[in-house]
Amino acid sequence: MSALQARPEEPGVAAVRVPLGGRAYDILVGRGLLDGAGPRIAALGARAAAIVSDETVAAVYAPRLAAGIEASGLRTALVTVAPGEASKSYETLARVCDAILDARIERGDLVVALGGGIVGDLAGFAAAIVRRGVRLVQVPTTLLAQVDSSVGGKTGVNTRHGKNLVGAFHQPSLVLADTAALDTLPLREMRAGYAEVVKYGLISDERFFEWCEANWRRIFAGGPERDHAVAESCRAKAAVVVRDEREDGERALLNLGHTFAHALERVTGYDAARLVHGEAVAIGMCLAFRFSVRLGLCPGQDAGRLRSHIASVGLPTSLAEIPGGCGPADGLVEAMAQDKKVKDGALTFILARGIGQSFIARGVAAPQVRAFLTEEIAG
Amino acid sequence: MSALQARPEEPGVAAVRVPLGGRAYDILVGRGLLDGAGPRIAALGARAAAIVSDETVAAVYAPRLAAGIEASGLRTALVTVAPGEASKSYETLARVCDAILDARIERGDLVVALGGGIVGDLAGFAAAIVRRGVRLVQVPTTLLAQVDSSVGGKTGVNTRHGKNLVGAFHQPSLVLADTAALDTLPLREMRAGYAEVVKYGLISDERFFEWCEANWRRIFAGGPERDHAVAESCRAKAAVVVRDEREDGERALLNLGHTFAHALERVTGYDAARLVHGEAVAIGMCLAFRFSVRLGLCPGQDAGRLRSHIASVGLPTSLAEIPGGCGPADGLVEAMAQDKKVKDGALTFILARGIGQSFIARGVAAPQVRAFLTEEIAG
Repeated sequence: MSALQARPEEPGVAAVRVPLGGRAYDILVGRGLLDGAGPRIAALGARAAAIVSDETVAAVYAPRLAAGIEASGLRTALVTVAPGEASKSYETLARVCDAILDARIERGDLVVALGGGIVGDLAGFAAAIVRRGVRLVQVPTTLLAQVDSSVGGKTGVNTRHGKNLVGAFHQPSLVLADTAALDTLPLREMRAGYAEVVKYGLISDERFFEWCEANWRRIFAGGPERDHAVAESCRAKAAVVVRDEREDGERALLNLGHTFAHALERVTGYDAARLVHGEAVAIGMCLAFRFSVRLGLCPGQDAGRLRSHIASVGLPTSLAEIPGGCGPADGLVEAMAQDKKVKDGALTFILARGIGQSFIARGVAAPQVRAFLTEEIAG
Repeated sequence: MSALQARPEEPGVAAVRVPLGGRAYDILVGRGLLDGAGPRIAALGARAAAIVSDETVAAVYAPRLAAGIEASGLRTALVTVAPGEASKSYETLARVCDAILDARIERGDLVVALGGGIVGDLAGFAAAIVRRGVRLVQVPTTLLAQVDSSVGGKTGVNTRHGKNLVGAFHQPSLVLADTAALDTLPLREMRAGYAEVVKYGLISDERFFEWCEANWRRIFAGGPERDHAVAESCRAKAAVVVRDEREDGERALLNLGHTFAHALERVTGYDAARLVHGEAVAIGMCLAFRFSVRLGLCPGQDAGRLRSHIASVGLPTSLAEIPGGCGPADGLVEAMAQDKKVKDGALTFILARGIGQSFIARGVAAPQVRAFLTEEIAG
């Protein structure tokens, strides 16, 4: 473990500490953490835990997780939602809150989010607002959730204006990332999560990117490289979150590729059959690097190196690869302008001077973006 | 002004500072603040403000408030909800959030809550979660809201399990309490708010209670005594909130009378025709004092003095005064057990050793409460 915040733990478990003062917490990464979750969750001190999951994940993991927690002396209740982005809605949020209250969860008790990013965002938001805040344990079961959404405290639901426009910052009290859960993850979801792993290298750590280039097959296959990639990603994200918890500044770096990605998800109607978030991020990161090249900020060979790695793992790298296309450049720019990261009407992008050298570029002029995208669409 | 946190301001305006570190804010109390709100709100720095109000209050004050804010250079939008407790629902919350997003409110912009406690709780909660938190200005127009709900950051909606069971702690950036708005407040609402004013004396300030006994008619009539009562109440509440923002301890003192009150509201079906919150609190405080006497904690004369003052202003002091009654003692105890202030199954009450000497009593046995209430019901 090269993680800066690594702490001694038992063999095979990496611990990343997120030092947020009174809200500090541990991210534990390792194989088999789900089955050993009971004592770790019980150590937080609570009488009851409401496990929130989606029906698919719950069928596989909820009985094991609940049994472990109950064996450690806590009462549990299971709350399930339908799988899929549609569950990140006001209506499902209300239903989950009511179900948590049905389970007689008090201020000192816990909500356990078991599943991918959708469940984590939804259950995390419910935990933030039930009784004005109960503690949250994240048990992410996808690579995307393990390296991104379960870390950092962002929770929320979607509205007709866009994704995650209503939510809360609510840090978990514990994150248990069981990397064995990824053994059965569909390849497409594994790749989608991997885009976020690569992102951390692109932002500030060229050596990690280089390590990914050399080791990505082993990350996909499982084994110590997977654990290292997850722990290293969590460490990278945690370091940024600690310096800027509420995204007033530097945390925006984590949006590398995301201004493009959110626009692509929007114009493809959030249709997972066409494009999932991680795929949109993969394309978005390639676009961010090529846009940086076009602006004379970044060497062309860095954009090429990124494209080559992204393509090698089987992720899309260009707009042409989106099934059904992405429509005209105007539509994409319009979609970006509605993104919540727009400040005072100007576009903000994360651009790069090279791999590992990303920076926040505020006030990027829309016509420049439009011209770039027009060329990209033309191929 | 005897307020500890008083600061120099223009004549006729009392300023109470709530020193919560990076979230410190001012509560301004005085006649005419609504019409002068524009520059004060503009001084917070924002491009736009969504004014959230109920239809009744909006008809009277929204045009004046909006005009003042716009004259200071901010864009405004008005979002109205139906008057009444039914608006503190998941559904109305979602509608208000969507309307705030319709108004293109960005992270640096403002939500202005214009109205009583219901609007303040609802709009405050929406401000807490839209874009994971935008700033909030409270412009309370009822006495209850001015002395209680607009101060301290508690926001929320009701669920089928009870009141305020879903919400957030979200401190305002500014509170403007225009005491002239109370000139047209119905007497019943004025009295209901006054119960909370008295509460601050009962908790920790016998001199303030004594001052209320001597000056309550002038508080109701308007004039400097009203402003003093509002400012002093805000100061008292702010002092507690600053020491215990998230109600882990001392803040529970502010619930004096409220464990009984919430149960009474519940068993009367939250029917404002029978009992409004402040009336329930008035009865609840009298019950808390008589219960304290019964437990041998408090001199009987203090309970009598409280009852006498509460009765003199026209507020109810006993269960017998509730139109339609309150049902059996068992029902009340059951309703209390569902209150969110229940910790680990035991009942928590705020009891008193005398006027100005309230304290938190944890683990009060339900049979004692039931026996006391049975006697109270028997009269």
